[in-house]
Amino acid sequence: MATLAQQQLFRLLDRTPLGHLGLIDDAGRPEVLPIVFARVGETLFSPIDGKPKGTAPLARLRYVERCPAVALTLDHYAADWRRLWWIKLDIQASVAVGQHPAWDAAVSALLSKYPQYRETALFKGEPTFVVMEWQRVRCWAAAEDGFAAIGL
Amino acid sequence: MATLAQQQLFRLLDRTPLGHLGLIDDAGRPEVLPIVFARVGETLFSPIDGKPKGTAPLARLRYVERCPAVALTLDHYAADWRRLWWIKLDIQASVAVGQHPAWDAAVSALLSKYPQYRETALFKGEPTFVVMEWQRVRCWAAAEDGFAAIGL
Repeated sequence: MATLAQQQLFRLLDRTPLGHLGLIDDAGRPEVLPIVFARVGETLFSPIDGKPKGTAPLARLRYVERCPAVALTLDHYAADWRRLWWIKLDIQASVAVGQHPAWDAAVSALLSKYPQYRETALFKGEPTFVVMEWQRVRCWAAAEDGFAAIGL
Repeated sequence: MATLAQQQLFRLLDRTPLGHLGLIDDAGRPEVLPIVFARVGETLFSPIDGKPKGTAPLARLRYVERCPAVALTLDHYAADWRRLWWIKLDIQASVAVGQHPAWDAAVSALLSKYPQYRETALFKGEPTFVVMEWQRVRCWAAAEDGFAAIGL
């Protein structure tokens, strides 16, 4: 398995726009949700934002509160399979409504990472983040030189 | 929520190279795994292929056998958030080793979908598929005209 120094992990988190959040739903089944997120220190923040949502936009908050041990996978698909990689974070998640010690830094990090928030509201309804702290990191890269191949 | 006719769903499954499989691991936590797959009728097949794997390449088989109710999400990220979409399949999964009524069709579908299998072995070790039958489909597209916006 490839290895990743902390600064490489930070860079990968900062420049990867999309993650896939693994949750456990009300029926005990896995659920996989594409999310945007930004990093402040060793914490990730994903807003309940103004992108159009399905009929149950807040189901994810209920799932997180019931089963806070979640998973976040970042990966890259390319037709050249020598460039594939993934990182998997075991996450302890929580829900922050309107306040968190890093709230302002999280807002800044999201606005800086996603220029799309000039058009799309950062929050829909009551300002809410899914807050994610990782406890374990696994990573894999197809290239023989691991993550060096993607310039980390 | 957008809707998707069966033929549109088939086209989306056939032309999307990567899915994210949600499993429940030995500790009861969610796990999200990027996978390749191909469709035969209403069944999806994902091989244990020759791409370099981590230290526990077959963990996914154990997870599927313990908790066959899994999830598969297909989605598209674009800097233009009006082009975002996802589909989520609730899946009943099983493991097929060396035989399945649609085995040959599954091999053909994978070789046709992924030219990469000219270089990469379709199977590593004993030929094995994760076989996935979907029971429920949810879908979402940011565009007002739903999946028509992506030419389905």
